[in-house]
Amino acid sequence: MKITSDLQKLISPGSIAVIGATSKKDRVGHIIFENLMRSELPLFPVHPREKEVSGYATYHEIESLPDNIDLAIIAIGAQRAVEAAERCARHGIPQIIVVAGGFSEAGTKGKLFEDRLRTIPKMFGSRILGPNTLGLFIPHNNLDTIFVEHGDRALSGGGGVAFISQSGSVGVEALGLASNTGYGMRAFIGLGNKCDLDELDFLQYFGMDHKTTCLAFYLESFDHGRMFLEQARKIAAKKPVVVLKAGRSKAGASAVSSHTGRLAGSDQVVTGAFRQFGIQRVYDDEELCDASKTLAALPPSFGNRIAILTPAGGYGVMGADHIETQKGGVKLAMATLSPITQERIRLFSLPFASCRNPVDLTASADNKMIGDTLDALLDDDNVDIIICTAFFAPPSITDGIVDEISSRAVGSKKPVIVFTQYGPFTDGYLRRFHENGVIGFPSIGRSVRAAKFLVERAIILKALG
Amino acid sequence: MKITSDLQKLISPGSIAVIGATSKKDRVGHIIFENLMRSELPLFPVHPREKEVSGYATYHEIESLPDNIDLAIIAIGAQRAVEAAERCARHGIPQIIVVAGGFSEAGTKGKLFEDRLRTIPKMFGSRILGPNTLGLFIPHNNLDTIFVEHGDRALSGGGGVAFISQSGSVGVEALGLASNTGYGMRAFIGLGNKCDLDELDFLQYFGMDHKTTCLAFYLESFDHGRMFLEQARKIAAKKPVVVLKAGRSKAGASAVSSHTGRLAGSDQVVTGAFRQFGIQRVYDDEELCDASKTLAALPPSFGNRIAILTPAGGYGVMGADHIETQKGGVKLAMATLSPITQERIRLFSLPFASCRNPVDLTASADNKMIGDTLDALLDDDNVDIIICTAFFAPPSITDGIVDEISSRAVGSKKPVIVFTQYGPFTDGYLRRFHENGVIGFPSIGRSVRAAKFLVERAIILKALG
Repeated sequence: MKITSDLQKLISPGSIAVIGATSKKDRVGHIIFENLMRSELPLFPVHPREKEVSGYATYHEIESLPDNIDLAIIAIGAQRAVEAAERCARHGIPQIIVVAGGFSEAGTKGKLFEDRLRTIPKMFGSRILGPNTLGLFIPHNNLDTIFVEHGDRALSGGGGVAFISQSGSVGVEALGLASNTGYGMRAFIGLGNKCDLDELDFLQYFGMDHKTTCLAFYLESFDHGRMFLEQARKIAAKKPVVVLKAGRSKAGASAVSSHTGRLAGSDQVVTGAFRQFGIQRVYDDEELCDASKTLAALPPSFGNRIAILTPAGGYGVMGADHIETQKGGVKLAMATLSPITQERIRLFSLPFASCRNPVDLTASADNKMIGDTLDALLDDDNVDIIICTAFFAPPSITDGIVDEISSRAVGSKKPVIVFTQYGPFTDGYLRRFHENGVIGFPSIGRSVRAAKFLVERAIILKALG
Repeated sequence: MKITSDLQKLISPGSIAVIGATSKKDRVGHIIFENLMRSELPLFPVHPREKEVSGYATYHEIESLPDNIDLAIIAIGAQRAVEAAERCARHGIPQIIVVAGGFSEAGTKGKLFEDRLRTIPKMFGSRILGPNTLGLFIPHNNLDTIFVEHGDRALSGGGGVAFISQSGSVGVEALGLASNTGYGMRAFIGLGNKCDLDELDFLQYFGMDHKTTCLAFYLESFDHGRMFLEQARKIAAKKPVVVLKAGRSKAGASAVSSHTGRLAGSDQVVTGAFRQFGIQRVYDDEELCDASKTLAALPPSFGNRIAILTPAGGYGVMGADHIETQKGGVKLAMATLSPITQERIRLFSLPFASCRNPVDLTASADNKMIGDTLDALLDDDNVDIIICTAFFAPPSITDGIVDEISSRAVGSKKPVIVFTQYGPFTDGYLRRFHENGVIGFPSIGRSVRAAKFLVERAIILKALG
């Protein structure tokens, strides 16, 4: 039985030592230290020769650090990192992040280093994240050890997704892209080689964290498959768990063993198990970001009837196509609007608008018509989810449409997903919706897919009782 | 038998009259006129009362225009537009664009207007594009009647895609988004209600245009199904034809009739026919843009064996997954690198790199390793297509990687597709690759899908002999 320690001091440390902190710009130890300064936590740079780093006096030895350090980040090469981790553990530091690569992913010699690292938690009780990891990013604490560019930090945060990734690159690159248009993150964890802490630890931790509203995993292997599933089922009864399991094809599975030295396992087994244990499965990084962004912020949908509201008929047609041909075991349907709703829309819309679903208000629509139609759809019991198109090209639609839609979407019991596109301004509008607390996507296909996850979530909730 | 006139004067007019040109900003007639000024063509604004528009003296009546006008753009409301079109035709103007909506898509009265418009080509021989259309955008002539924002015009152009759309919004919004990262367009045509000119005319025209290297269509209905297919087959033997046929589901087909008053037809018939006649089918606007961007610029691939080059193992795993599970009737395979290639890569890569496919150079890779590996893959007869990852996060990879990759990709007989992602800089890097003439995408899934279209293209070429 695997026992999970309290990771509080990893996620919310009171003080941090950085082993290998340096004044030399471009060095990982410098970038991490500068990143951490934004947290305004007590920082303790450790370097054998340098006297100060960014205005902080350095400690020349780990042993001379104060006694109450919560977290050590080790930013030096593999061989010396093992020794440093041992000394940190011996000094009583409970949480250690080992950044360096060159361990089990790098062949026989690296594997020996990692085996030695693996003994430290057993001997001293300290926990290790990594090695070969970018570390973590906890927006609400301004805690960020990620030493590569990862998008707009302000836009990444402010939300409930705990994003846990076995590949640092995948996590960071995908989040960097997602965060350009807004993404509500509670925490990002790069698992690295998982010599100690692994997906199960963070599943448990963030499963208990009441501000986490969705858990998202990129995984290539499971270290405790059965326990992960059982734990996931318990958590899925309370909050969504989304997993991208890479290595699902033969070639992909073979690549996993080159990448992380692990076995990917049978893909069909994975699919069946995920379904049974309430895990929502996704297939690429874009889908992982989209699904978690949606599930963290919007309520589940206990019906599958979707209404589309658009000022551009073509997107109504394509949206209907996407809804009726959606794959992945969840059936979606185009809502049949009640006669009252249709009549209500007819009253305020233009004579050549289509008042059936998809509701096509045409390019002559104005802000008020969009808002009034949204009201009518929210009131219609035949509609479970609304996809609302925010286009800015129609002459009578202005910037004000963002607030017109947001004021109705935020806090609504019926999920409203915004599809917006406007040439070079698309990302900017998505950011504005995000800042208002509204979930939006730049494609009709991705908007429909987001709806699918909300329906799937309700099916899981029912199945788990 | 439908006879197609020479559309030269529509695409490359020598002079243009704008009916409804006005100094009143925000009016469609003003925006179009200002857009057209960039073409530096002789322009003739027509307005019953205004004396000048943007420094050009106006004509108060169509009849007082000079005799040799090639193209009239009518930017006034539906009812008056019909009369104006008649007068333009009577005056001998061979090409007419009717912008206004409010025709057959708007009910009985509008249908009467459209019926009258439809008689004009028969009576006078002039051709009409529209009504209810954004018109056209021909980058190489700086000819642009599109009165809504549509991305970076400079980035849209410079390529071989003729993009013909039955929905103006879909075309413009999708292109606006695509053009932010670069898109090589020869021409954009908004078909509108197709009262006269339709997809068949432009299929024929751009099929003959030797600078068009790919035709892309968004269509909700076919006006001359059989002829379109037969013509497409002839053209597909020379250049790719990609079609997004919306209204493929029951609800989508029903929405088509609301949107454009047409019948969408049976979807299964469409799939079968497309395959038989060499048309490449896509399912949403992003895919239409991606496929046409790729097919217009890269050679077909007579083999399906793909090599992936990455400094981030996770993307190698996901890429392999995408390759082995690609749908849509085209089978892709992970290339098995020759022993010589593997040995060659081993010589210059780091000890813990994976020299099999996917080639994972790890985050310690530098520009030269990426370039040298690309050379090795280009030389390997077991490799048909290369997906090359351009990441900028690894410390030894610099900006120079763009040229390192571009110098090898441009003009290569073996298609090279770039996958790039770097947080907020992603679009900027995609633009730089585009400016170098390299096809790139911000997701591994879209990169693999692009490869699929190149393999499908070769299958079509073989089948058409």
